[in-house]
Amino acid sequence: MSTSPQESVRRQNLGALLRYVHVRGATSRAELTSRLGLNRSTIGALTADLATAGLIDEGVPQETGRAGRPSIVVSPRSSRVYGYAMSLELNRLRAARIGLGGKVLADRSAERPPGAEAAPAVAALAALVADMQRTAPAGGVFIGSALAVSASVRHHLGWTDEAIGPALAAALDALDLQPRPGPANRPIIGGSADLAALAEHTRGAAAGLDNVIYLHGDAGISAGIIAGGRRITGYGGHGGEVGHMVVNPSGRLCGCGSRGCWETEIGERALLYLAGRAVPTPGAAVTAAVRAAREGDPDARSAVAHAAAWLGFGVANLVNIFNPTAVVFGGTLRELYLAGADTVRDRLATMALPACRDHVALHTPALGDDAPLVGAAELAFERLLADPLDTIP
Amino acid sequence: MSTSPQESVRRQNLGALLRYVHVRGATSRAELTSRLGLNRSTIGALTADLATAGLIDEGVPQETGRAGRPSIVVSPRSSRVYGYAMSLELNRLRAARIGLGGKVLADRSAERPPGAEAAPAVAALAALVADMQRTAPAGGVFIGSALAVSASVRHHLGWTDEAIGPALAAALDALDLQPRPGPANRPIIGGSADLAALAEHTRGAAAGLDNVIYLHGDAGISAGIIAGGRRITGYGGHGGEVGHMVVNPSGRLCGCGSRGCWETEIGERALLYLAGRAVPTPGAAVTAAVRAAREGDPDARSAVAHAAAWLGFGVANLVNIFNPTAVVFGGTLRELYLAGADTVRDRLATMALPACRDHVALHTPALGDDAPLVGAAELAFERLLADPLDTIP
Repeated sequence: MSTSPQESVRRQNLGALLRYVHVRGATSRAELTSRLGLNRSTIGALTADLATAGLIDEGVPQETGRAGRPSIVVSPRSSRVYGYAMSLELNRLRAARIGLGGKVLADRSAERPPGAEAAPAVAALAALVADMQRTAPAGGVFIGSALAVSASVRHHLGWTDEAIGPALAAALDALDLQPRPGPANRPIIGGSADLAALAEHTRGAAAGLDNVIYLHGDAGISAGIIAGGRRITGYGGHGGEVGHMVVNPSGRLCGCGSRGCWETEIGERALLYLAGRAVPTPGAAVTAAVRAAREGDPDARSAVAHAAAWLGFGVANLVNIFNPTAVVFGGTLRELYLAGADTVRDRLATMALPACRDHVALHTPALGDDAPLVGAAELAFERLLADPLDTIP
Repeated sequence: MSTSPQESVRRQNLGALLRYVHVRGATSRAELTSRLGLNRSTIGALTADLATAGLIDEGVPQETGRAGRPSIVVSPRSSRVYGYAMSLELNRLRAARIGLGGKVLADRSAERPPGAEAAPAVAALAALVADMQRTAPAGGVFIGSALAVSASVRHHLGWTDEAIGPALAAALDALDLQPRPGPANRPIIGGSADLAALAEHTRGAAAGLDNVIYLHGDAGISAGIIAGGRRITGYGGHGGEVGHMVVNPSGRLCGCGSRGCWETEIGERALLYLAGRAVPTPGAAVTAAVRAAREGDPDARSAVAHAAAWLGFGVANLVNIFNPTAVVFGGTLRELYLAGADTVRDRLATMALPACRDHVALHTPALGDDAPLVGAAELAFERLLADPLDTIP
C-alpha cells in the first residue's frame, strides 16, 4: 500500500507527539508546540487524531494560579492502551501489563519450572499473561509484547531466541490477544541487561542521556549499552558480555573456560568465596556479605574491598571504550557499588583517561528489578510509536 | 523555511539515490529502481534533477552482449564534486581532494611543523589544501571538509578539537573555497581510528557490515567502532581508547599512569622492547621486527609471539563486548596480525564466547593508510548526501 508524502509526514508527527507524552507523561499543548517545532493548529489536529484513536486524553489542567487561558494538557491513555512485558530469569518468571506511558498496570511472577526444556517455561509465561488478561479492562487495546531473557538463562540453559520465540508466539496467539495476528505482532526478544539499559535510558536513572553503560550482576555479570542514543547489541544480539572480559590473567578459572574473567572477581560467587561462605540464595547472599562487612566481619570486609576494586577496574576499561556519561549498577552490583563507592571512584580516577571519564556519573538504578520489564515494554511499544494509527485496529 | 511534505520526501529520495551511487559507483537505472523500491518514472525524475545539479552523469553502457535495450547507467561526477579530507598525525600532515564516489583526485603530505602549538600545523594543513585547490578543475564544486586527528596527537600534544576546529575553519575560509560560508560548512573533526572504521565499513574490508571493530596501531593503540551501522564515539568523541584497556594488571607501567594497558603488551614500543631493540622510526620498526622474526631471530620471534597472544587476548575481550562480524587490523597491528594470525585466532577461539565470535572474520584493511582520509571525506560528504540540492549552490 503506497502512502502519499503528506500522509507519511503526518504519521511521523503523530509518532513523535505520542512518543513525547509516552516518555514525559502529561504535557501541555503549549510545550508540545515548542518542543516538536510544529505550529498550534498542527498540534491540535494531531492530538484530535490521537484522541479519536483512543491513544491520548485531552483535558484542562487544574487551576494554575496564573492569569490567562490554561493550555490543554495531553496525557497517554495508560489504562486503555497496553503491552505485555515478560522476563525469563534462571529461577523466576515475571510478566506485567504495562500501559502507554510506562505505567505498570498489573504484574505476576512464578518460579521457573525446573528442567532443561524451554517449553514449560514458555507455557508458564503465557499463563501469567492469560491471568492478567482476565482482568484487563473492557475496550482495552493490546499493542504488542516483548520478553527479556537474562544472560544466565542463555548461558546456563543454552536457550536461544529461536528456541523461545516461535513457541512463545504460538502460546500468546492462543490467548487471542492480538489485534492483528501476524509476524509483526510476534513477541520481541531482548537481553535483560540490554532492556534494563533501555529502561533506565528512557525513564530511569539515565533518562535523556545518550551514552550509558548499565551493569547487571546476578549469577554472572552482563551489560546493556546505549551509545549515541541507541541500544548496542551486536550482530546476533550477544554483545555486552562484559562478565567475560578478562581482567586478571592470573586469576581463577571461569565457567566459560577462560581464566580471570571479570565475573570471577566481582560476581556473586567470587564475593562469597572470598568471604568464606557457601553460595546460598542468589542476591540475598550478596546483601548478607555486604551487611557483614558493614558490621565489621574481617573476611567480609576484605572480600567487599577486593570486589569493589575490581569493579572499578572493569568500569575504567569500559569507560575508556565507550566514553559514557552514566554508569548504572544493577542487581547484585548495586549492593557492591554502594558498599565500595569510594574504591570504585578511586580506581576509575586512576585508570580511566581524563577525556573519557570527565563527564561520567555513577548511579544506582531508578527502576530496580522492574527495569528489564519496563525495557521490554518499550520494545513492545516501539511499533505503535513509529506509526500510531497503523497499529491501532 | 518550511518544506512541503512532497518536497521533503523528494529530497530524501534524492539523497538515497545519490548515496547509493556514491557508495556503489556506476549503477544502472534498473538496479536503482529495484534497490530503492521506487518506480521507473520516479527514478528518471530524480536522476534528471541530480544531473541538472551536476552531481551525476547518465550514459548508455558499453555493449553488454545481451538482447534488448540496455538500462541507462548513473555515475557520480567524481571529478566535479569534491571535498577536502585532512589528516593530522604526530609526525605528518596529509590532505586529499576526494571526489563524490570516494575517488582520491589529488593528495599532498608534509611533515608536521615541530612544537607544542596547534596553529602552525593548522596553517600547514590549509597550505596543502590551497596547493591542491590551484589545480582544481574550473567549475568544480567544493562541498565540505573534514579532518582526522590521530589518537597520538590528542594524547601526546593534548590538542583538543576546540583548539583545532575554529583555527582550521578560519584558515580554510581565507581560501575562499566555501560555496556557502557559515557554520554548516566548517570542517568536521573526527578521530583517525573512528574515520578509518567508517571508511572500511563504507567501501573497504568491512563494506556493508554493520558491526565492525577497526584496530589501529602506531605510537599507541586505538579503535574505531561501528555498531548497528553507526560510528560509536561516546559523549565527547573520546571512546575507542582500547589501548588503555588494562589486560595485564601485573604488567608494565603505561604512560597514562595505569599498569598493564593493552598497548604496553602489543604497542610498537612493547614489541621492540621485547625484541631487544631501541625505538627507531615508528612503523618501519615493527616491519623490521616482524621480518627478523620470520628470518629466525629468536628474540624477535619471542617478541612477536608474545604480542600476537596479547593481541588475540584483547580482541577476545572486545568481541565479547561488541559481537561484531569483522575485526580489521590497521597500522602496525596489520603486520603483527599477519605475523601471528594463528595465535590471534587461537586466543579468540579459547577466550571469546561462541555466540559472540561465531560470525566474526578477521581482516587486513582494504584502504591501507588512506583509510582516515577516505573516512574524513565520508564525513565531509554527509551533508550533501542528506539533502543534495540544498547543498549545491
